[in-house]
Amino acid sequence: MAEPFHCDFANQLFMGHLGNHMLNAADFHSNDRGFGMNYLNTIGKTWVLSRLAIETVEMPKSYTQFYIETWVESAMKYFTKRNFKITDAQTGKIYGYGRSIWAMIDTETRQPTNILDINDGDILKYVDKEKECQMAQNSRVGISDAARLARVIDTHYNDVDMNGHINSIKYIEHVLDLWDIEWYRKHQIRRFEVAYVAESHQGDKLCFYTESTAADAADNDKANEQEYGVRICKRENTNSTEADDERQWEETEVCRCKVTFAVIP
Amino acid sequence: MAEPFHCDFANQLFMGHLGNHMLNAADFHSNDRGFGMNYLNTIGKTWVLSRLAIETVEMPKSYTQFYIETWVESAMKYFTKRNFKITDAQTGKIYGYGRSIWAMIDTETRQPTNILDINDGDILKYVDKEKECQMAQNSRVGISDAARLARVIDTHYNDVDMNGHINSIKYIEHVLDLWDIEWYRKHQIRRFEVAYVAESHQGDKLCFYTESTAADAADNDKANEQEYGVRICKRENTNSTEADDERQWEETEVCRCKVTFAVIP
Repeated sequence: MAEPFHCDFANQLFMGHLGNHMLNAADFHSNDRGFGMNYLNTIGKTWVLSRLAIETVEMPKSYTQFYIETWVESAMKYFTKRNFKITDAQTGKIYGYGRSIWAMIDTETRQPTNILDINDGDILKYVDKEKECQMAQNSRVGISDAARLARVIDTHYNDVDMNGHINSIKYIEHVLDLWDIEWYRKHQIRRFEVAYVAESHQGDKLCFYTESTAADAADNDKANEQEYGVRICKRENTNSTEADDERQWEETEVCRCKVTFAVIP
Repeated sequence: MAEPFHCDFANQLFMGHLGNHMLNAADFHSNDRGFGMNYLNTIGKTWVLSRLAIETVEMPKSYTQFYIETWVESAMKYFTKRNFKITDAQTGKIYGYGRSIWAMIDTETRQPTNILDINDGDILKYVDKEKECQMAQNSRVGISDAARLARVIDTHYNDVDMNGHINSIKYIEHVLDLWDIEWYRKHQIRRFEVAYVAESHQGDKLCFYTESTAADAADNDKANEQEYGVRICKRENTNSTEADDERQWEETEVCRCKVTFAVIP
């Protein structure tokens, strides 16, 4: 259900909460089939989300019940693709789709490990190549060096998940917070795409660099769309001193996002 | 269920998410009985949360299923008290309790209205005075003028709920973010109490003033407890100019919180 306090000023489910439900669906689906985090953690491995893209026609309104369907599109040695479909529980109306790419790592060495080694490649039994996911593939999220620094934020206790890293969903929320309510009165999110590059930790400062990336004006379908690229970098304290002015901040890319808004007619 | 990505670094449900589940329980319970927001909104009235206190012995761990029971303790002309009990769905273990106080206002005039006017005082049929809520009553949350400014934050799109105000739960999260992960490795939240004084809106800056309030050293039960008061004030832009240095900020109290931590043995 789109819980009332998970909805924005316009009564629509926040994109971050939709993303969270999708990660839950992925987690439950893989746990139920024996290749989820719960099993992987017992053998020193874990899933790492590498890419997530969500396309929506419309967002569920408050109190609406909806389903998130998920399936594995493909599984290879180092990557697996998992898709999502979001539909209304009553009417069957399609709210949107999602695509994600996951890697598996060894929790000790943090190095990629072979997905097909888990239970003799059991995941392959669940691959469904035929099922349609009616949205574009994950694209290259490119941001030029001309992107301007739009905001710097601190990270806190509530940003950190069970893995000790900044929660993947928090990046989505922080990026969407770069626009204010006035903007959201006139624009709705059509597509959100994120490529995770590195992990960040509580205490890191996150820097948001944005640029407007041209939508194809020749494409009539996209005439009312606006696209932005956002690069998030972390500033880590690489000097062990606590004194603020003596800290040396080193900047590393954490993730790259692309947001497409459509003007509300 | 304590969803995996709603849990902190120590695998325990975040207090903010627990609070959100409690507000949902209150909402569903009152909607089901004809005096919830859904009905009130059709007659130009709404519930306003005035006080919330949560006491926990322990927090549900990730993937744990738990129940939130809620009931009306009392209903008067301008205030109603609603309690909560949080128990494990499998074992029946009690995680904690909650107390809340609500007023009803006219959405047009923002003035208090008579709760007992709704459906001829129907709410009185649901009052359960006998049911035990094993925690202290909502106390006076007092903070002295000596409290020091600990943090100033901006408010964004994701902070605002369907009513157009900063979401009640966000204050809880921002307050708990005043302590870092190192603190939470050594301390657990025993009690969180908040008194809501005024509404704030996106664009307001929130200022957090904190002070350590003495726990009763003579009380052996509380020897390992530490208590803090937090006052949140909003700084509104009262000048219509956009230029940052010409803005005139006026500070108004938004809410007062009291957090009690226990040292983890």
